[in-house]
Amino acid sequence: MDTLDTIFNHRSIRSYKTDAISKPILDNILEAAIRTSTTGNMQVYSIIVTQDEEKKKALHKIHFGQGMVLEAPLLLTFNADFNRFNKWCNQRNAVPGYDNFLSFFTAAIDALIAAQNATLAAEAQGLGVCYLGTTTYQAEKLIDIFNLPEGVVPVTTLVIGYAKDIPALVDRLPADAVVHYEEYKNYSADDIDRIYKDREALEETKKLLEENKLETLAQIFTQNRYPKAMNVDFSKLFLDVIKKQGFMNQ
Amino acid sequence: MDTLDTIFNHRSIRSYKTDAISKPILDNILEAAIRTSTTGNMQVYSIIVTQDEEKKKALHKIHFGQGMVLEAPLLLTFNADFNRFNKWCNQRNAVPGYDNFLSFFTAAIDALIAAQNATLAAEAQGLGVCYLGTTTYQAEKLIDIFNLPEGVVPVTTLVIGYAKDIPALVDRLPADAVVHYEEYKNYSADDIDRIYKDREALEETKKLLEENKLETLAQIFTQNRYPKAMNVDFSKLFLDVIKKQGFMNQ
Repeated sequence: MDTLDTIFNHRSIRSYKTDAISKPILDNILEAAIRTSTTGNMQVYSIIVTQDEEKKKALHKIHFGQGMVLEAPLLLTFNADFNRFNKWCNQRNAVPGYDNFLSFFTAAIDALIAAQNATLAAEAQGLGVCYLGTTTYQAEKLIDIFNLPEGVVPVTTLVIGYAKDIPALVDRLPADAVVHYEEYKNYSADDIDRIYKDREALEETKKLLEENKLETLAQIFTQNRYPKAMNVDFSKLFLDVIKKQGFMNQ
Repeated sequence: MDTLDTIFNHRSIRSYKTDAISKPILDNILEAAIRTSTTGNMQVYSIIVTQDEEKKKALHKIHFGQGMVLEAPLLLTFNADFNRFNKWCNQRNAVPGYDNFLSFFTAAIDALIAAQNATLAAEAQGLGVCYLGTTTYQAEKLIDIFNLPEGVVPVTTLVIGYAKDIPALVDRLPADAVVHYEEYKNYSADDIDRIYKDREALEETKKLLEENKLETLAQIFTQNRYPKAMNVDFSKLFLDVIKKQGFMNQ
């Protein structure tokens, strides 16, 4: 499948057939992830493959009971991972200096862009994919279930399988909502109105507001989907995990 | 170009022709980035396009004087960005709760996977790409030069242009260095020896050790490329930037 077609046809798939993914396709997705750029070719990330039904049941609970976690045959959890690299340094008379926040973030970059390569490799082979935002919220529980040692922090998860339903392409804001030339042009009140106008006028938005008895689409985010109290709680937990895994020693 | 071919042919390009990138190709790369999955379709990232020669000179300094920054016609800086989203909330009677670390990290995920889509879209159209790891080190200076408001933190930069030299594919560790099935299998000393054996035996490695008068490849990383003192300094700076940009209020 053509690269640009793969990219421009992306939609998040949330409903899956139970059909298994063949070993050659799984291997290819993993190899695609491994070919991604990594910082200094250190490859400071790791991938946990989940196919086992018992493990999937446990992950289903951890990821807020989202049905697709049970339905899809494959989950890939991507971790920021300095564990292997640190072990190598220690075995080679080299003193690793990666117990700090910058190193965590460097490793997270490696993990995240590898996840996007895996996504496109899966989609190019007829599979559907959905990112799980719950990975950072539940990092501590994932560390437990996967037995992740110090130096390893989960940062995202891909649900992968053959789509049961293929939804329409999701709308995106106009390009000038995200693209700035040469320097950042901050938004006036009128810019904001213009940028969000089409999204706010969607039938889907009107239905959401009626169902939730709210006035504005923005309130759906601030009150229902990503409310402050939840963000603050999970923020503390995630920072504690980063610390506990040894990335805040300096 | 076929998706898997694009992915498996990736190499970081560090030497560029000065040939300009046409507007339709640039627009296509940006649209490819915009089609990437984003958390809750919030699109909490932004992209700064640099083509101006004066701006490139300033960025060249900021990015440690790496020659490719001057040579290549295009740089894309990807930011974690809650600024626009917060403005929208405030204009729509919704109280944003995104002044915390989790929200920063959520926005960074959006920015990073969008960067990887831009990378593949560029490569599929015959361009070369290199990620700059210096973006997080120099986030504060990038905020200055791009006039980034509160809520915006640069997380990575792509250098894009037509390759002058196309290097050989870079080696990668064997797949079991990064892939774990069902749970994390930690590495024994023998595993580490086996995993790093081929890389350590490369001619390129031997040359590096001679040039740097060091004993082991791991020391090249811990003493030369990513030494502890540097990581610790840039770690503090990057955490300060995240705080200053309003993501550590809770």
